[in-house]
Amino acid sequence: MEKSKLTLIKIGGNIVDNPSALHAFLRDFSALPGLKILVHGGGKMATQLAARLDIKVTMVEGRRVTDEESLKVVTMVYAGLANKDIIAQLQSFQCNALGLSGADANLIRARKRPVQEVDYGFAGDLSADSINSKQLQTFLAQGLVPVFSAITHNGEGQLLNTNADTVAAELAIALSGYYDTDLIYCFEKRGVLSDVNDENSVIPAIDRTGYQHYKEDGVIAAGMVPKLDNAFSAVDRGVKHVIIKHAEEILSEQNGTIIS
Amino acid sequence: MEKSKLTLIKIGGNIVDNPSALHAFLRDFSALPGLKILVHGGGKMATQLAARLDIKVTMVEGRRVTDEESLKVVTMVYAGLANKDIIAQLQSFQCNALGLSGADANLIRARKRPVQEVDYGFAGDLSADSINSKQLQTFLAQGLVPVFSAITHNGEGQLLNTNADTVAAELAIALSGYYDTDLIYCFEKRGVLSDVNDENSVIPAIDRTGYQHYKEDGVIAAGMVPKLDNAFSAVDRGVKHVIIKHAEEILSEQNGTIIS
Repeated sequence: MEKSKLTLIKIGGNIVDNPSALHAFLRDFSALPGLKILVHGGGKMATQLAARLDIKVTMVEGRRVTDEESLKVVTMVYAGLANKDIIAQLQSFQCNALGLSGADANLIRARKRPVQEVDYGFAGDLSADSINSKQLQTFLAQGLVPVFSAITHNGEGQLLNTNADTVAAELAIALSGYYDTDLIYCFEKRGVLSDVNDENSVIPAIDRTGYQHYKEDGVIAAGMVPKLDNAFSAVDRGVKHVIIKHAEEILSEQNGTIIS
Repeated sequence: MEKSKLTLIKIGGNIVDNPSALHAFLRDFSALPGLKILVHGGGKMATQLAARLDIKVTMVEGRRVTDEESLKVVTMVYAGLANKDIIAQLQSFQCNALGLSGADANLIRARKRPVQEVDYGFAGDLSADSINSKQLQTFLAQGLVPVFSAITHNGEGQLLNTNADTVAAELAIALSGYYDTDLIYCFEKRGVLSDVNDENSVIPAIDRTGYQHYKEDGVIAAGMVPKLDNAFSAVDRGVKHVIIKHAEEILSEQNGTIIS
C-alpha cells in the first residue's frame, strides 16, 4: 500500500521573533496540502524574558544551560506564548492545529542529559524510542495538525528543554515508517549557499561526499554543521527528503537544498 | 443506551500555587476512575510574574483587565508553565493527560467581552456553541485526559483570557448531552459552610430556594456567589451534579456540597 505523504516543518527564531514573517509563514503553512506537523523554537523571546526577570543565562559552547529558573522561562515562552499564538493564528486560517509539548499525551519522552564535563541542567536528549508514533498517527488521521514546542518530559514529572532541530528530526524519523516523510528546515537563506553573500548560489543538493568537501573548503560554516548533521542522520534513518529552504518558499517545489 | 460517566474538576489558585497540594491533588486525580477532564486557573503566579515584569495589573470590580501585556503573561503562565507542569506530573502517575487551551483543535471559541462601561481588554466570554464537543469526545474515547487552561481564542487569531470557573461550567454543560457529567469545583474549604469558622458545618446540599435564604441570611458570602451562580446554571442546563468540595477529598464520595 502506498504511504501517505507527511511534511514536517521546523521554524526557528528568525520566523518566531518576527510577527509579520510568522503571520505570512503560517498562512502558507495552512495552505500546504496533505498531512503536516510544525515544530517551532522560541527565538529571542526566552532570552529577553530571562533578561527582564534578571535570570542569568549561562551558555557553554553555544548551548544554553537550563537551570530551574531558565526551564520555567522556556516553558512559559515556548510552550505557552509562542505555541498558543501560533495555534490561534493557524485556526484563523482554518488549519486545525493542536499545540503540543512532548509531555502532552506522552508524545516525546526524553532523558536528562548526563552530566559529564558540563552540566546542562534540565536539557533533554532524545533516543530512538522517544516518539509516541501511534498517538501522532491518531491525531493526524483525525485531521489535526500537531504543532510542537521543543519542551519534552522524562516520564517522571520533569519537563526538559530540548533542541528543536533534533525534535523535528526524531519526529520525522519515527514517522517515516508510516508516511513518506519530508522534513523541511526553514532557514533565513534560500538554502545552503555556495557563496554566503549571494542568495542565488543555492546548492540544490548535498550528499555525504559533497558535505565533506564543503566542510573542508569552508563553504559550510560551523553554525550549519549541527543542522546538517541532523539532516543526514534523518536521511540515513528513513526520512525521504530533508530540505533546507527559506520560510517564504515552503509552497514552492523548486527552491532550497535537498540533503540526500 | 446508558451514558458513560464523566467527571470534570476545576482547581484554582489555592492548589496551583501550592506545589505539595498540587502534587497530592494530581495523584488523587490520576486515581479517579472513568472519563475525566481537568480545568485549572493559574493562581498568583500570573500576578507575581506581572509584578516582576513591572506590568501594571488593573482590576475593575474584582476582575482583571487583560491588556496586551497581561494577556502575554497569562498565556505564558496558564497555558505554558502551569499547564505543562501539571501534564508532566499527571504523566508520571500514568494518567495520559493532554494539555489544551481553547485555541487547540478549536476546542473553545470565545468572543471578546463587549466594551460597555468597562473595557476588560482581551477577556473572553463563552456562549452555548463555544465548545467543540465532538473533538473532546474523540479525545476522551482515545483514553486521553484533557487538561485545560482558561485561555481561549476568537477564531480570528486572537487569544482571550477567560474565567476558569465559567470554562469548567460550559464544558460540563456541553458534554452533559453525551455523558452523565459531574462537575466538581475544588475549594479551600470542605464545601459551602454554614459557619465559616467550622469545617464540620458543610451544607450537604443546596437548592435554589435554600440558596436564596442563605444569601439573604449572609451565610453565603459575596465571593461564593459567582461560583454558585455558575453551579446553578450548570445544573439547570443538564449537568447531573455540581459539587463543591475540598481538593483533598475528590476520591471521597461523601463530602462536599451538592448543588441541585
